[in-house]
Amino acid sequence: MEVEILRLNHRIGRDPRISTHVALTARAFGASKIYYSGQKDSSMEDVVNKITTNFGGPFNIKYENEDLKLIKEKKKVGFTIVHLTVYGLNLLEEIKKIRTCKKLLIIIGGEKVEPEFYKIADYNISVTNQPHSEVAALAIILHEYFQGNEFDKKFKDFKTNIIPDKAHKVVKSKRENL
Amino acid sequence: MEVEILRLNHRIGRDPRISTHVALTARAFGASKIYYSGQKDSSMEDVVNKITTNFGGPFNIKYENEDLKLIKEKKKVGFTIVHLTVYGLNLLEEIKKIRTCKKLLIIIGGEKVEPEFYKIADYNISVTNQPHSEVAALAIILHEYFQGNEFDKKFKDFKTNIIPDKAHKVVKSKRENL
Repeated sequence: MEVEILRLNHRIGRDPRISTHVALTARAFGASKIYYSGQKDSSMEDVVNKITTNFGGPFNIKYENEDLKLIKEKKKVGFTIVHLTVYGLNLLEEIKKIRTCKKLLIIIGGEKVEPEFYKIADYNISVTNQPHSEVAALAIILHEYFQGNEFDKKFKDFKTNIIPDKAHKVVKSKRENL
Repeated sequence: MEVEILRLNHRIGRDPRISTHVALTARAFGASKIYYSGQKDSSMEDVVNKITTNFGGPFNIKYENEDLKLIKEKKKVGFTIVHLTVYGLNLLEEIKKIRTCKKLLIIIGGEKVEPEFYKIADYNISVTNQPHSEVAALAIILHEYFQGNEFDKKFKDFKTNIIPDKAHKVVKSKRENL
Protein backbone atom coordinates (compact mmCIF):
# COMPACT_ATOMS: atom_id res chain seq x y z
CA MET A 1 0.00 0.00 0.00
CA GLU A 2 1.47 3.30 -1.08
CA VAL A 3 -0.20 6.60 -0.26
CA GLU A 4 0.87 10.02 -1.41
CA ILE A 5 -0.82 13.37 -0.79
CA LEU A 6 -1.22 16.42 -2.98
CA ARG A 7 -2.07 19.68 -1.22
CA LEU A 8 -3.37 22.25 -3.72
CA ASN A 9 -2.71 25.96 -3.74
CA HIS A 10 -0.69 26.55 -0.58
CA ARG A 11 -0.45 30.23 0.41
CA ILE A 12 2.46 31.36 2.53
CA GLY A 13 0.69 34.16 4.40
CA ARG A 14 -2.47 32.27 5.21
CA ASP A 15 -1.83 28.54 5.32
CA PRO A 16 1.55 27.79 6.91
CA ARG A 17 0.30 26.07 10.04
CA ILE A 18 -2.62 24.31 8.34
CA SER A 19 -0.39 22.95 5.57
CA THR A 20 2.17 21.88 8.17
CA HIS A 21 -0.55 20.04 10.08
CA VAL A 22 -1.67 18.41 6.83
CA ALA A 23 1.88 17.25 6.14
CA LEU A 24 2.52 15.94 9.66
CA THR A 25 -0.84 14.16 9.69
CA ALA A 26 0.05 12.57 6.34
CA ARG A 27 3.33 11.31 7.80
CA ALA A 28 1.90 10.12 11.13
CA PHE A 29 -0.98 8.25 9.48
CA GLY A 30 1.07 6.30 6.96
CA ALA A 31 1.54 8.35 3.79
CA SER A 32 5.06 8.35 2.36
CA LYS A 33 5.09 11.66 0.53
CA ILE A 34 3.34 14.99 0.22
CA TYR A 35 3.41 17.27 -2.80
CA TYR A 36 2.10 20.80 -2.62
CA SER A 37 1.30 23.43 -5.23
CA GLY A 38 0.72 27.16 -4.90
CA GLN A 39 3.52 29.11 -3.30
CA LYS A 40 6.83 27.43 -2.52
CA ASP A 41 7.43 27.62 1.22
CA SER A 42 10.90 26.55 2.36
CA SER A 43 10.25 27.29 6.01
CA MET A 44 7.23 24.94 6.02
CA GLU A 45 9.37 22.28 4.34
CA ASP A 46 12.02 22.78 7.03
CA VAL A 47 9.51 22.24 9.84
CA VAL A 48 8.27 19.01 8.28
CA ASN A 49 11.76 17.74 7.45
CA LYS A 50 12.96 18.41 10.99
CA ILE A 51 10.15 16.26 12.37
CA THR A 52 11.09 13.47 9.95
CA THR A 53 14.77 13.72 10.90
CA ASN A 54 13.89 13.55 14.58
CA PHE A 55 11.01 11.06 14.62
CA GLY A 56 11.87 8.97 11.55
CA GLY A 57 10.75 8.29 8.04
CA PRO A 58 10.76 7.73 5.22
CA PHE A 59 8.64 10.79 4.45
CA ASN A 60 9.18 13.41 1.79
CA ILE A 61 7.74 16.83 1.08
CA LYS A 62 8.06 18.28 -2.40
CA TYR A 63 6.89 21.47 -4.09
CA GLU A 64 5.21 20.76 -7.44
CA ASN A 65 3.32 23.61 -8.99
CA GLU A 66 2.16 21.72 -12.08
CA ASP A 67 -0.40 19.83 -10.07
CA LEU A 68 -2.65 18.62 -12.91
CA LYS A 69 0.37 17.28 -14.78
CA LEU A 70 1.49 15.46 -11.63
CA ILE A 71 -1.93 13.86 -11.25
CA LYS A 72 -1.88 12.65 -14.86
CA GLU A 73 1.58 11.14 -14.38
CA LYS A 74 0.50 9.39 -11.19
CA LYS A 75 -2.53 7.94 -12.99
CA LYS A 76 -0.24 6.49 -15.65
CA VAL A 77 1.78 4.60 -13.05
CA GLY A 78 -1.25 3.05 -11.37
CA PHE A 79 -2.30 5.52 -8.71
CA THR A 80 -6.00 5.91 -7.92
CA ILE A 81 -6.91 9.56 -7.45
CA VAL A 82 -9.07 10.40 -4.42
CA HIS A 83 -10.15 14.02 -4.08
CA LEU A 84 -11.39 15.03 -0.63
CA THR A 85 -14.28 17.47 -0.84
CA VAL A 86 -17.27 18.23 1.34
CA TYR A 87 -19.43 17.72 -1.78
CA GLY A 88 -18.24 14.17 -2.46
CA LEU A 89 -19.65 10.72 -1.77
CA ASN A 90 -19.70 9.39 1.80
CA LEU A 91 -16.29 7.96 2.73
CA LEU A 92 -17.78 5.18 4.83
CA GLU A 93 -19.83 3.94 1.86
CA GLU A 94 -16.89 4.04 -0.57
CA ILE A 95 -13.97 2.94 1.60
CA LYS A 96 -14.23 -0.78 0.82
CA LYS A 97 -13.69 -0.07 -2.87
CA ILE A 98 -10.89 2.39 -2.11
CA ARG A 99 -9.13 -0.19 0.07
CA THR A 100 -8.78 -2.44 -2.97
CA CYS A 101 -6.57 0.23 -4.59
CA LYS A 102 -2.94 -0.33 -3.65
CA LYS A 103 -1.63 3.08 -4.70
CA LEU A 104 -3.49 6.24 -3.73
CA LEU A 105 -2.93 9.88 -4.47
CA ILE A 106 -5.15 11.86 -2.10
CA ILE A 107 -5.87 15.42 -3.20
CA ILE A 108 -6.59 18.07 -0.58
CA GLY A 109 -8.04 21.31 -1.85
CA GLY A 110 -7.11 24.89 -1.13
CA GLU A 111 -9.54 27.80 -0.88
CA LYS A 112 -11.10 27.12 -4.30
CA VAL A 113 -10.77 23.96 -6.34
CA GLU A 114 -11.20 24.12 -10.11
CA PRO A 115 -13.66 21.72 -11.82
CA GLU A 116 -10.76 19.90 -13.53
CA PHE A 117 -9.83 18.28 -10.23
CA TYR A 118 -13.34 16.94 -9.70
CA LYS A 119 -13.25 15.48 -13.21
CA ILE A 120 -9.81 13.90 -13.10
CA ALA A 121 -10.42 12.26 -9.71
CA ASP A 122 -11.45 8.60 -9.63
CA TYR A 123 -13.28 9.35 -6.40
CA ASN A 124 -14.65 12.60 -4.99
CA ILE A 125 -15.05 11.76 -1.32
CA SER A 126 -16.55 13.57 1.65
CA VAL A 127 -15.70 13.03 5.29
CA THR A 128 -19.13 14.10 6.52
CA ASN A 129 -20.97 16.73 4.48
CA GLN A 130 -20.25 19.41 7.05
CA PRO A 131 -17.56 22.07 6.70
CA HIS A 132 -14.61 21.37 9.01
CA SER A 133 -10.92 20.83 8.24
CA GLU A 134 -8.72 19.25 5.60
CA VAL A 135 -6.52 18.02 8.45
CA ALA A 136 -9.42 16.12 10.00
CA ALA A 137 -10.59 14.76 6.64
CA LEU A 138 -7.12 13.47 5.81
CA ALA A 139 -6.69 11.80 9.20
CA ILE A 140 -10.03 10.02 8.88
CA ILE A 141 -9.51 8.70 5.35
CA LEU A 142 -6.02 7.41 6.22
CA HIS A 143 -7.33 5.83 9.43
CA GLU A 144 -10.14 4.13 7.49
CA TYR A 145 -7.82 3.06 4.65
CA PHE A 146 -5.18 1.53 6.94
CA GLN A 147 -7.85 0.34 9.41
CA GLY A 148 -5.94 1.40 12.50
CA ASN A 149 -2.71 -0.35 11.49
CA GLU A 150 -1.15 3.09 11.07
CA PHE A 151 -0.95 3.23 14.88
CA ASP A 152 1.64 0.41 14.71
CA LYS A 153 3.72 1.90 11.91
CA LYS A 154 7.46 1.58 12.55
CA PHE A 155 9.44 4.63 11.48
CA LYS A 156 13.06 4.23 10.47
CA ASP A 157 16.14 6.22 11.44
CA PHE A 158 14.49 8.14 14.25
CA LYS A 159 16.41 9.97 16.94
CA THR A 160 13.48 10.27 19.31
CA ASN A 161 10.75 7.84 20.24
CA ILE A 162 7.77 8.54 22.49
CA ILE A 163 6.65 5.71 24.77
CA PRO A 164 2.92 5.65 25.65
CA ASP A 165 2.33 6.32 29.34
CA LYS A 166 -0.66 6.79 31.61
CA ALA A 167 0.40 10.11 33.11
CA HIS A 168 4.00 11.06 32.25
CA LYS A 169 6.11 12.19 29.33
CA VAL A 170 8.38 9.28 28.43
CA VAL A 171 10.79 10.01 25.61
CA LYS A 172 13.55 7.68 24.50
CA SER A 173 16.39 9.11 22.50
CA LYS A 174 18.90 7.11 20.46
CA ARG A 175 21.71 8.30 22.68
CA GLU A 176 20.22 6.41 25.62
CA ASN A 177 20.45 3.20 23.66
CA LEU A 178 24.21 3.38 23.20
CA MET B 1 -23.73 10.61 24.77
CA GLU B 2 -22.59 14.13 25.41
CA VAL B 3 -19.19 15.37 24.29
CA GLU B 4 -17.68 18.75 25.01
CA ILE B 5 -14.22 20.04 24.11
CA LEU B 6 -11.81 22.28 25.96
CA ARG B 7 -9.09 23.94 23.89
CA LEU B 8 -6.31 25.25 26.15
CA ASN B 9 -4.33 28.45 25.74
CA HIS B 10 -5.59 29.87 22.44
CA ARG B 11 -3.36 32.64 21.05
CA ILE B 12 -4.89 35.18 18.70
CA GLY B 13 -1.80 35.87 16.62
CA ARG B 14 -0.72 32.29 16.14
CA ASP B 15 -3.68 29.94 16.42
CA PRO B 16 -6.77 31.46 14.78
CA ARG B 17 -7.08 28.99 11.92
CA ILE B 18 -6.00 25.95 13.91
CA SER B 19 -8.45 26.73 16.72
CA THR B 20 -11.18 27.35 14.14
CA HIS B 21 -10.45 23.98 12.56
CA VAL B 22 -10.56 22.36 16.01
CA ALA B 23 -13.96 23.94 16.68
CA LEU B 24 -15.44 23.01 13.29
CA THR B 25 -14.13 19.46 13.62
CA ALA B 26 -15.69 19.24 17.07
CA ARG B 27 -19.04 20.34 15.62
CA ALA B 28 -18.91 18.13 12.51
CA PHE B 29 -17.92 15.02 14.47
CA GLY B 30 -20.63 15.20 17.08
CA ALA B 31 -19.49 17.39 19.99
CA SER B 32 -22.06 19.87 21.28
CA LYS B 33 -19.83 22.55 22.73
CA ILE B 34 -16.30 23.89 22.76
CA TYR B 35 -14.71 25.95 25.49
CA TYR B 36 -11.40 27.68 24.99
CA SER B 37 -8.95 29.38 27.35
CA GLY B 38 -6.04 31.72 26.62
CA GLN B 39 -6.93 34.85 24.68
CA LYS B 40 -10.57 35.72 23.95
CA ASP B 41 -11.03 35.84 20.19
CA SER B 42 -14.37 37.23 19.05
CA SER B 43 -13.55 36.94 15.36
CA MET B 44 -12.85 33.21 15.74
CA GLU B 45 -16.13 32.84 17.60
CA ASP B 46 -17.90 34.66 14.78
CA VAL B 47 -16.49 32.30 12.14
CA VAL B 48 -17.64 29.25 14.10
CA ASN B 49 -21.06 30.72 14.93
CA LYS B 50 -21.66 31.61 11.28
CA ILE B 51 -21.05 28.01 10.27
CA THR B 52 -23.50 26.84 12.95
CA THR B 53 -26.12 29.36 11.82
CA ASN B 54 -25.74 28.26 8.22
CA PHE B 55 -25.24 24.49 8.56
CA GLY B 56 -27.13 23.85 11.78
CA GLY B 57 -26.60 22.99 15.42
CA PRO B 58 -26.86 22.87 18.29
CA PHE B 59 -23.21 23.82 18.79
CA ASN B 60 -21.78 26.42 21.13
CA ILE B 61 -18.40 28.08 21.50
CA LYS B 62 -17.54 29.74 24.81
CA TYR B 63 -14.48 31.51 26.19
CA GLU B 64 -13.56 30.23 29.64
CA ASN B 65 -10.18 31.27 30.96
CA GLU B 66 -10.43 29.42 34.28
CA ASP B 67 -9.86 26.10 32.59
CA LEU B 68 -8.86 24.03 35.64
CA LYS B 69 -11.93 25.24 37.52
CA LEU B 70 -14.12 24.31 34.55
CA ILE B 71 -12.62 20.80 34.48
CA LYS B 72 -13.32 20.32 38.20
CA GLU B 73 -16.93 21.47 37.74
CA LYS B 74 -17.41 19.09 34.81
CA LYS B 75 -16.04 16.21 36.87
CA LYS B 76 -18.59 16.94 39.58
CA VAL B 77 -21.47 16.59 37.11
CA GLY B 78 -20.30 13.27 35.75
CA PHE B 79 -17.99 14.12 32.88
CA THR B 80 -15.00 11.85 32.21
CA ILE B 81 -11.91 13.91 31.37
CA VAL B 82 -9.86 12.78 28.37
CA HIS B 83 -6.68 14.70 27.68
CA LEU B 84 -5.22 14.25 24.20
CA THR B 85 -1.43 14.15 24.26
CA VAL B 86 1.22 12.49 22.14
CA TYR B 87 2.62 11.03 25.39
CA GLY B 88 -0.60 9.25 26.40
CA LEU B 89 -1.86 5.69 26.15
CA ASN B 90 -2.86 4.30 22.75
CA LEU B 91 -6.39 5.39 21.83
CA LEU B 92 -7.22 2.12 20.13
CA GLU B 93 -6.39 0.16 23.29
CA GLU B 94 -8.41 2.46 25.57
CA ILE B 95 -11.40 3.34 23.40
CA LYS B 96 -13.66 0.51 24.60
CA LYS B 97 -13.43 1.78 28.17
CA ILE B 98 -13.92 5.38 27.03
CA ARG B 99 -17.03 4.40 25.07
CA THR B 100 -18.67 3.30 28.32
CA CYS B 101 -18.49 6.92 29.55
CA LYS B 102 -21.60 8.81 28.52
CA LYS B 103 -20.28 12.33 29.15
CA LEU B 104 -16.83 13.32 27.91
CA LEU B 105 -14.80 16.46 28.22
CA ILE B 106 -11.93 16.19 25.75
CA ILE B 107 -8.97 18.48 26.48
CA ILE B 108 -6.79 19.67 23.62
CA GLY B 109 -3.51 21.26 24.58
CA GLY B 110 -1.87 24.44 23.46
CA GLU B 111 1.87 24.96 22.99
CA LYS B 112 2.74 23.82 26.52
CA VAL B 113 0.47 21.90 28.87
CA GLU B 114 1.05 22.14 32.62
CA PRO B 115 1.38 18.91 34.67
CA GLU B 116 -1.91 19.67 36.46
CA PHE B 117 -3.82 18.73 33.32
CA TYR B 118 -2.13 15.34 33.07
CA LYS B 119 -3.01 14.71 36.72
CA ILE B 120 -6.64 15.81 36.64
CA ALA B 121 -7.40 13.82 33.48
CA ASP B 122 -9.06 10.44 33.84
CA TYR B 123 -7.33 9.43 30.63
CA ASN B 124 -4.20 10.77 28.93
CA ILE B 125 -4.63 9.48 25.40
CA SER B 126 -2.43 9.50 22.31
CA VAL B 127 -3.58 9.27 18.71
CA THR B 128 -0.37 7.65 17.51
CA ASN B 129 2.85 8.60 19.35
CA GLN B 130 3.98 10.76 16.46
CA PRO B 131 3.74 14.55 16.40
CA HIS B 132 0.98 15.74 14.07
CA SER B 133 -2.10 17.87 14.73
CA GLU B 134 -4.66 18.44 17.44
CA VAL B 135 -7.26 18.69 14.65
CA ALA B 136 -6.42 15.17 13.43
CA ALA B 137 -6.30 13.77 16.97
CA LEU B 138 -9.72 15.22 17.80
CA ALA B 139 -11.29 13.89 14.60
CA ILE B 140 -9.96 10.39 15.24
CA ILE B 141 -11.08 10.15 18.87
CA LEU B 142 -14.58 11.40 18.01
CA HIS B 143 -14.78 9.02 15.03
CA GLU B 144 -13.74 6.11 17.27
CA TYR B 145 -16.04 7.18 20.11
CA PHE B 146 -19.13 7.54 17.89
CA GLN B 147 -18.03 4.61 15.68
CA GLY B 148 -18.89 6.32 12.43
CA ASN B 149 -22.42 7.28 13.49
CA GLU B 150 -21.30 10.91 13.46
CA PHE B 151 -21.52 10.74 9.66
CA ASP B 152 -25.30 10.39 10.04
CA LYS B 153 -25.75 13.18 12.55
CA LYS B 154 -28.77 15.35 11.78
CA PHE B 155 -28.20 19.02 12.44
CA LYS B 156 -31.12 21.25 13.35
CA ASP B 157 -32.15 24.66 12.04
CA PHE B 158 -29.76 24.68 9.12
CA LYS B 159 -30.09 27.02 6.17
CA THR B 160 -27.80 25.03 3.89
CA ASN B 161 -27.41 21.32 3.36
CA ILE B 162 -24.81 19.62 1.16
CA ILE B 163 -25.95 16.53 -0.74
CA PRO B 164 -23.25 13.92 -1.47
CA ASP B 165 -22.51 13.63 -5.18
CA LYS B 166 -20.07 11.73 -7.36
CA ALA B 167 -18.73 14.74 -9.26
CA HIS B 168 -20.75 17.91 -8.63
CA LYS B 169 -21.46 20.47 -5.96
CA VAL B 170 -25.03 19.92 -4.82
CA VAL B 171 -26.24 22.37 -2.23
CA LYS B 172 -29.78 22.59 -0.95
CA SER B 173 -30.89 25.75 0.77
CA LYS B 174 -33.98 26.17 2.91
CA ARG B 175 -35.39 28.70 0.45
CA GLU B 176 -35.70 25.99 -2.21
CA ASN B 177 -37.93 23.99 0.08
CA LEU B 178 -40.60 26.69 0.39
